[in-house]
Amino acid sequence: MNSLKERIIADGEVLSGNTLKVDSFLNHRIDTGFVLEIGREFKKIFSDCDINKILTIEASGIAVSFATSQSFDFCPVVFAKKGAASNMGPDVYHASLYSYTRRADYEVYVSKKYLNKNDKVLIIDDFLANGDALNALIKICEQAGCELVGCGVVIEKAMQKGGEMLREKGIRVEALARVESMDAEKGIEFC
Amino acid sequence: MNSLKERIIADGEVLSGNTLKVDSFLNHRIDTGFVLEIGREFKKIFSDCDINKILTIEASGIAVSFATSQSFDFCPVVFAKKGAASNMGPDVYHASLYSYTRRADYEVYVSKKYLNKNDKVLIIDDFLANGDALNALIKICEQAGCELVGCGVVIEKAMQKGGEMLREKGIRVEALARVESMDAEKGIEFC
Repeated sequence: MNSLKERIIADGEVLSGNTLKVDSFLNHRIDTGFVLEIGREFKKIFSDCDINKILTIEASGIAVSFATSQSFDFCPVVFAKKGAASNMGPDVYHASLYSYTRRADYEVYVSKKYLNKNDKVLIIDDFLANGDALNALIKICEQAGCELVGCGVVIEKAMQKGGEMLREKGIRVEALARVESMDAEKGIEFC
Repeated sequence: MNSLKERIIADGEVLSGNTLKVDSFLNHRIDTGFVLEIGREFKKIFSDCDINKILTIEASGIAVSFATSQSFDFCPVVFAKKGAASNMGPDVYHASLYSYTRRADYEVYVSKKYLNKNDKVLIIDDFLANGDALNALIKICEQAGCELVGCGVVIEKAMQKGGEMLREKGIRVEALARVESMDAEKGIEFC
């Protein structure tokens, strides 16, 4: 998606610790018109797929998933919740993962009411690096017994191994921009 | 908003501890078409207002804010982040609040880059009960020196004091459904 690559180059910041910050349009300040374009791009890529639910993880995945749902006939979005809110009840799927930006392990939960074996699920997230978040969502799909149609991520940091490991397992993973290398001085190169 | 009240009565669950659960359409499973209607309703209510930014709080406020932005010419959404992610940097506004569903205090942060004295801000959130979340967002607006145009919440639990306290301060607070009383057996009554 060329407009996305241009936007990453114009507005992205490369920080130490292999961090690419795109919080000016994607995950702190949200450029909603542009995120709707991202949603339409996911629809183009997965246009051959029968999907009735989008699964994501709070908080950064919600806006992109909301936009993508609008291109998939407003199919429901379910977002996995971090930590156990007191009102979630015991009937949940759950998986644990490590957040590199928050430097802590945490559990994510999805109520069993909202995901089941009849669902055909597209997982959507903002970033794919080591694959921890997608792996947690995939585990939740396995627990639900639903059909995982594929995973769509806005930005893949292809120099990290998450995407490769998932594709080796036979999971369809599509990224709208794949970063090959990045450096605060030399800039960002795409695959 | 009658369709919202009907939806709350049909799908809402009243739990112990004064909790109203609407996670089947608003804040766990998201009915995106319906949430877009909610966004259009906020536009009707605040149609007389000049707004260039929507401020909300992760995670449940994001979908409603995204939808509302679409009715306000795609004005940017900024969501306050919970806890300090390692890549936020030191230039942030922040406020603390207590989460009743998570039973813990936490800090919320907004980068100074994305909110400033030239902004005319509409605060959007899913729930208003004791007003803790809105108060934190209002404090952040005060730190930024921006103009707070008003607050729009999907559901106000009017038997709690948050809305009353904010309105007494002269802040415009609009709720699409105001719950007067609720009981697991007797059901939900609106104001």
